[in-house]
Amino acid sequence: MQALETDWTDVEKNVAQTAFNKAYERELTGLMQAVRESSNQIEKPDDLWRLHDLLSAKRHEIDGKYDYRYPALMFVFAGLVKEGWLSIDELNGLQSNKVAKILALSRM
Amino acid sequence: MQALETDWTDVEKNVAQTAFNKAYERELTGLMQAVRESSNQIEKPDDLWRLHDLLSAKRHEIDGKYDYRYPALMFVFAGLVKEGWLSIDELNGLQSNKVAKILALSRM
Repeated sequence: MQALETDWTDVEKNVAQTAFNKAYERELTGLMQAVRESSNQIEKPDDLWRLHDLLSAKRHEIDGKYDYRYPALMFVFAGLVKEGWLSIDELNGLQSNKVAKILALSRM
Repeated sequence: MQALETDWTDVEKNVAQTAFNKAYERELTGLMQAVRESSNQIEKPDDLWRLHDLLSAKRHEIDGKYDYRYPALMFVFAGLVKEGWLSIDELNGLQSNKVAKILALSRM
């Protein structure tokens, strides 16, 4: 299931990098918006620590999730499709067997 | 220099608890305001992680600083006076030797 870097053509690498960046930007834009809204509702210390907990969890999750290494990339994309940060159509340009695998993984 | 719980009269305990709470409330109110302002200026992921770093550092610092145990309390008050979260006048009601020690420590 793993695909080495040599299994990705230059065209595929461009598609993959663009899709990866797009998902990252979407997720981060959403998080930035949530943090701004949550911050404006801070009224007591517990609200502050709850925001800190949220940021700690999200930073850890995002650091782990956005791992642009070719052997992991199909799993990464499957996760992003599953979570809704990426549409499978945005992977058009990848070889069809890769897209099929990503789609199958995203439904597991 | 340490004062055990038995060295604090009931009146002193009340004064100490009130002063301690007041300093905590001031520092947290300032931090909540800073976080609200900083959140409204978040434009890119780095801003988000900088806010997270600030909250991590402040939470750690505040957890360590606001230690209401009698043997540590004069050091705690000295630190709060030094940092400006508490005025020495707000410790009126403590025995004068305690106030003098706190003042001396706050100037070290």
